Amino acid sequence: MTPFTPPTADQLLAIRVNAGIEELATTERFVHAEGDLVEAIVEGVGQFAAGEFAPLNRKGDLEGARLENGRVRLPEGFEAAYQAYVEQGWNAIASPIAHGGQGLPFTLACNVLENLGAANMAFTLLPMLSVGAIEALEHHGSPAQQAMYLPKLVSGEWSGTMNLTEPAAGSDVGALRSTAEPIESGEHAGKYRITGQKIYITWGEHDLASNIVHLVLARLPGAPEGSRGISLFVVPKYHVNADGSLGPHNDLRCVSIEHKLGINASPTCVMSYGDNGECIGELVGAENKGLAAMFTMMNNARINVGNQGVQIGERATQAALAYARDRVQSARAGSPNKTPVAIIEHPDVRRMILRMKALTEGARALLYYCAGQVDRGNLGDVAAGMRGEIIVPMLKAWGTDIGVEVAGLGIQIHGGMGFVEETGAAQHWRDSRIAPIYEGTNGIQAADLVTRKLGLDGGAALIALFETIAREAAGEAALAGLARDCIAIACWMKDEASLDDRLAGSVPFCTMAAVCVAGWQLMKQGEAVAAGAAPALAETKPVTVRFFLDRIVPEAAGLKAGAVAGADLLYALPAAVLVG
Amino acid sequence: MTPFTPPTADQLLAIRVNAGIEELATTERFVHAEGDLVEAIVEGVGQFAAGEFAPLNRKGDLEGARLENGRVRLPEGFEAAYQAYVEQGWNAIASPIAHGGQGLPFTLACNVLENLGAANMAFTLLPMLSVGAIEALEHHGSPAQQAMYLPKLVSGEWSGTMNLTEPAAGSDVGALRSTAEPIESGEHAGKYRITGQKIYITWGEHDLASNIVHLVLARLPGAPEGSRGISLFVVPKYHVNADGSLGPHNDLRCVSIEHKLGINASPTCVMSYGDNGECIGELVGAENKGLAAMFTMMNNARINVGNQGVQIGERATQAALAYARDRVQSARAGSPNKTPVAIIEHPDVRRMILRMKALTEGARALLYYCAGQVDRGNLGDVAAGMRGEIIVPMLKAWGTDIGVEVAGLGIQIHGGMGFVEETGAAQHWRDSRIAPIYEGTNGIQAADLVTRKLGLDGGAALIALFETIAREAAGEAALAGLARDCIAIACWMKDEASLDDRLAGSVPFCTMAAVCVAGWQLMKQGEAVAAGAAPALAETKPVTVRFFLDRIVPEAAGLKAGAVAGADLLYALPAAVLVG
Repeated sequence: MTPFTPPTADQLLAIRVNAGIEELATTERFVHAEGDLVEAIVEGVGQFAAGEFAPLNRKGDLEGARLENGRVRLPEGFEAAYQAYVEQGWNAIASPIAHGGQGLPFTLACNVLENLGAANMAFTLLPMLSVGAIEALEHHGSPAQQAMYLPKLVSGEWSGTMNLTEPAAGSDVGALRSTAEPIESGEHAGKYRITGQKIYITWGEHDLASNIVHLVLARLPGAPEGSRGISLFVVPKYHVNADGSLGPHNDLRCVSIEHKLGINASPTCVMSYGDNGECIGELVGAENKGLAAMFTMMNNARINVGNQGVQIGERATQAALAYARDRVQSARAGSPNKTPVAIIEHPDVRRMILRMKALTEGARALLYYCAGQVDRGNLGDVAAGMRGEIIVPMLKAWGTDIGVEVAGLGIQIHGGMGFVEETGAAQHWRDSRIAPIYEGTNGIQAADLVTRKLGLDGGAALIALFETIAREAAGEAALAGLARDCIAIACWMKDEASLDDRLAGSVPFCTMAAVCVAGWQLMKQGEAVAAGAAPALAETKPVTVRFFLDRIVPEAAGLKAGAVAGADLLYALPAAVLVG
Repeated sequence: MTPFTPPTADQLLAIRVNAGIEELATTERFVHAEGDLVEAIVEGVGQFAAGEFAPLNRKGDLEGARLENGRVRLPEGFEAAYQAYVEQGWNAIASPIAHGGQGLPFTLACNVLENLGAANMAFTLLPMLSVGAIEALEHHGSPAQQAMYLPKLVSGEWSGTMNLTEPAAGSDVGALRSTAEPIESGEHAGKYRITGQKIYITWGEHDLASNIVHLVLARLPGAPEGSRGISLFVVPKYHVNADGSLGPHNDLRCVSIEHKLGINASPTCVMSYGDNGECIGELVGAENKGLAAMFTMMNNARINVGNQGVQIGERATQAALAYARDRVQSARAGSPNKTPVAIIEHPDVRRMILRMKALTEGARALLYYCAGQVDRGNLGDVAAGMRGEIIVPMLKAWGTDIGVEVAGLGIQIHGGMGFVEETGAAQHWRDSRIAPIYEGTNGIQAADLVTRKLGLDGGAALIALFETIAREAAGEAALAGLARDCIAIACWMKDEASLDDRLAGSVPFCTMAAVCVAGWQLMKQGEAVAAGAAPALAETKPVTVRFFLDRIVPEAAGLKAGAVAGADLLYALPAAVLVG
């Protein structure tokens, strides 16, 4: 497997141009995020990821996580790498200073995940899930819960999980049936007895951290049906004593782990709570408000999954580039010189390499643009916060789609070797495939875009985004045209289309919108580089920008017919007839 | 894993409308291919495939082919299924009557492979490779070679392989280094001593057939460099005595089998010839004309690989449809009724299902159109033969691309379950990924289209195809527009573009061209169904046709910018700069 080289220059460019880190550093809260620190973080985590996480990627895929007598075993090396990660403090970047974090912008936390995940996507799910638990407790936990759990989650000594899904409750979380029974008296008075089975619990069981803080959605007795009757509970693997030391094992266990297509080093657990009626948890936040609590962190979680598309895109591109520069095969077509050349010299291989680079850099620009908006929202800029929310489904859906596409191109460039597992190209493709599914399928992202996000400010927020692009990209005909297409579609959806029509066109529209925003942000990178922002990218950036604007943007425009075609054809036949 | 239901009605429609079987049956050679026999074959092989091959598909993936002491072991059940296949005579459909075949149209051989491959793609590579060996010997073998090998290859008692690739000779077959030394005297006088190592040899070793007939490309002493110095040899696993009985094992062996992303039941072998200097083969055809001999069968082999896209598309669609009709999750959006529904009732799931169906049916229409042209070419219709040659790269490239896309949509419809291997959705996606690579990568197909195929008749043959479509599809604005785009691009490539420019745009153009021809052939299916051709499809076909013409055709038009963008940007930077 090709080593991972952190794309530091491109990351710094995106953090400056698309997230606008320098402006963020002018605020009191983020005053420490000045240039030298930012560079130190981006370079430092990149080196750490390349040195500690990347070498374990293939090993993690081959050996995978294994369940032995109820305990999950990871391949050798994972424990040491995780300890090094904790010791170096990378887990604490964006967490609150009050709980031991560094209080830096979310933008920089995105960069930590980007580097770690490009090095080892399966492994990085461990800290990624912990971040979600931190956010949930930070926003909804009681002071006592925060004091008990946050310092060790922030440092990384303990890890966290999210327990939503049940066999009959996947996309429809509201259908879950796990229960929480209040305990009236005794040692655990005021707490709850949790009972139920959860599936797809990422890093639900392992030994790398000394405790695992499970956040579990369950129903209180007599709770309303559906999503209005769900409460959030914190359920530690080991009970925590008042002095912070660990008590006995809670009544919860990993029943099995899934045999998956990819991310094999990430144990995907079936978790059982309360087999003996003694699983104890505490309520987090208000009764029946669990789903709302989950939603506060879902925004960032979706950004983190979109980030995985950038990660796998970067890693697959590096591998394909190394192979294409090394593999010699055939002379250039039409060349009088019959000497075989490295395959990167062949036009279509170049096209594929540039497409991989352009898609990855475009998704990275979108990622950091989104992260910067989230940071502004956290600073109280309502319009930026809303802009961030609008971008999230685009980033999650398109970012993960291009992750799969780029990894697939990576296989193609490797030719027959790409289909042989040895090269690692196939692993990237297999790993990439989960991202369009979890944290809300890409179909659900698109539905979110054409319902809730289109509804923000009566549609004005979404349309204003594309109006800005159409204006700023006036010199780029294809991009401006795509922005106008997006305006037209948004207006049609808002004013004329039925809900079914909107949903029928949601996925093509979401792709168009994402390409439009990514192209705009990439254009801004190009302008900045032309103005001297990143000398290391002075040669390459203009090429990837042009590739994106001249070839990828027009493709997205071809999706318009599907976006406005409506739902009638989809329902022309009853489901029973849709056979043969 | 969902059982396989042969799509008999849609196959028969394509065989009639797109291949024009009734017209073929008016010729003396194909007089037996009349309606009843065609129906009996399509129904019979479909039932056989569903009953014997399909149940082994998941087992073959899980257990895979294994190399034990130089012998390849297949999972239990493969041997019995293969014997049943031979006994029922399915291998002999299109082979010459003189050698025990049925002499039926290639079109029907395509249908045999389509059904078998949809049931079990990895297994079906065994008969698919044998067909290639039959064709090579039929066209280039001596009468003695034909008499020795063809009857048993045609019946399926023996299987065949193609040995082209070597570690340094992949897409550039001309770089191969295996050698063939003439034997002057002794028992094997007049034969050749073969030495070399070949990789990626599909079904290169196994016990299902009693002998394996390897066709091996190698160089004679003093042969010219490159592709003009390659000769073709027939090298049996077991020597064949004059009376047809088997002699001793030849000096050849399977060194290892690859650990692959998919098609795990198909042993992909590294073959070593002449480790002890005693590997004996016979020259097939003329000295140094081996590559030309290989090319005569490459056309059909590429069609057979394009066919695999249809196969995996069909199988993945059936599985997704079954899951989507079964899996209940969430109420319909906007419905006052909060009762959860089967996910197929949600608009975006319907969109995905219809997209899977439309792409698969479109590729099937293209497959049988291509097969029908090949059959006409074999009957002496030069224009049809040329039309077939033009379609081949479109079918191979786009057919296999949609195979991957449809299998990916199948995973998406399964949600989290799609990423868990248990459902089988992931297997289809993994299996599908080889088809864009082997038998000439899709990049090589596209290069073939914009060089050799565009060059046929000075470009007139290709342009005439799109002119016909533009005329016949005058009532379908998007399709006619796409045909005019294709004409414009073909003219630009022919008259103005440099070779590099053509190659730079080759893949987008190849996709546009394929979608255009497939849309046209699907439109013809729609017209035939409207005229009463297939009552069983009267409800569904109009829907898939409209989906294809209204949504997929416009997407292809979005590729135009990439097709005509030229090569300058691709070469704006030297390869060494394409980092970071």
